[in-house]
Amino acid sequence: MKIWIASDHRGLALKENLKSKFPQKDWQDLGPFSSAPVDYPDYAEKLCEQVKDLDQGVLVCGTGQGMVIKANRYKHIRAALCWNEQSVLLARKHNNANVLCLPGTLISFDLCEKIFKIFNETSFEEGRHLRRIQKL
Amino acid sequence: MKIWIASDHRGLALKENLKSKFPQKDWQDLGPFSSAPVDYPDYAEKLCEQVKDLDQGVLVCGTGQGMVIKANRYKHIRAALCWNEQSVLLARKHNNANVLCLPGTLISFDLCEKIFKIFNETSFEEGRHLRRIQKL
Repeated sequence: MKIWIASDHRGLALKENLKSKFPQKDWQDLGPFSSAPVDYPDYAEKLCEQVKDLDQGVLVCGTGQGMVIKANRYKHIRAALCWNEQSVLLARKHNNANVLCLPGTLISFDLCEKIFKIFNETSFEEGRHLRRIQKL
Repeated sequence: MKIWIASDHRGLALKENLKSKFPQKDWQDLGPFSSAPVDYPDYAEKLCEQVKDLDQGVLVCGTGQGMVIKANRYKHIRAALCWNEQSVLLARKHNNANVLCLPGTLISFDLCEKIFKIFNETSFEEGRHLRRIQKL
């Protein structure tokens, strides 16, 4: 499974941290690669154009809000902004989220690692949730 | 300022609570009006078709994720999923969010009231943030 990842300058440190903590994953890093200020919608766009089929995506900015707005403009994307373990577990089980948005400056790196692990390892429950996501 | 509000069955109790705690607001309630199960995308769609100009919207489901995905499908909507006071403050200041999505079963009603108050009363900062939201 390819995992596309991108951030803005506020999310850069967390992006690098996640890659280093899960070195066995097939990361596809779309940048940025320096701390110069960038506009988050540009990086959300790059990522959403790449995420296909069973790929996953991770987007990080300061609060995650700009990323979750832009990513959900794309019909094939179901982007979830997650701030704890319960929110991400349900985003996978009920919403089949394929892009995880993280609030890079509002929660700890340690918690973000736990959230990513659940995102990556939890399956969609289907059932009544399938009918609902088909309306998204 | 009109405040459009809708939920699914999981968010119904919080929807009613918010209206009762802020009775002076110009609430426009789009339902549901009973606790029978509904599909959250239907109610997000109803609301997004109504929110115009300087109106605000509030969408509540169990986790807020389904609502934030569906609402951001609409180009004129900037929907923020907020779980604490800092996340909503920045969603207004930096993202000019016009729809607030609340995780009705993951945080307390008391905290949701505080989040709504900040959402309703905080202004957009403009500046560099204006260029970024124009790309959304």
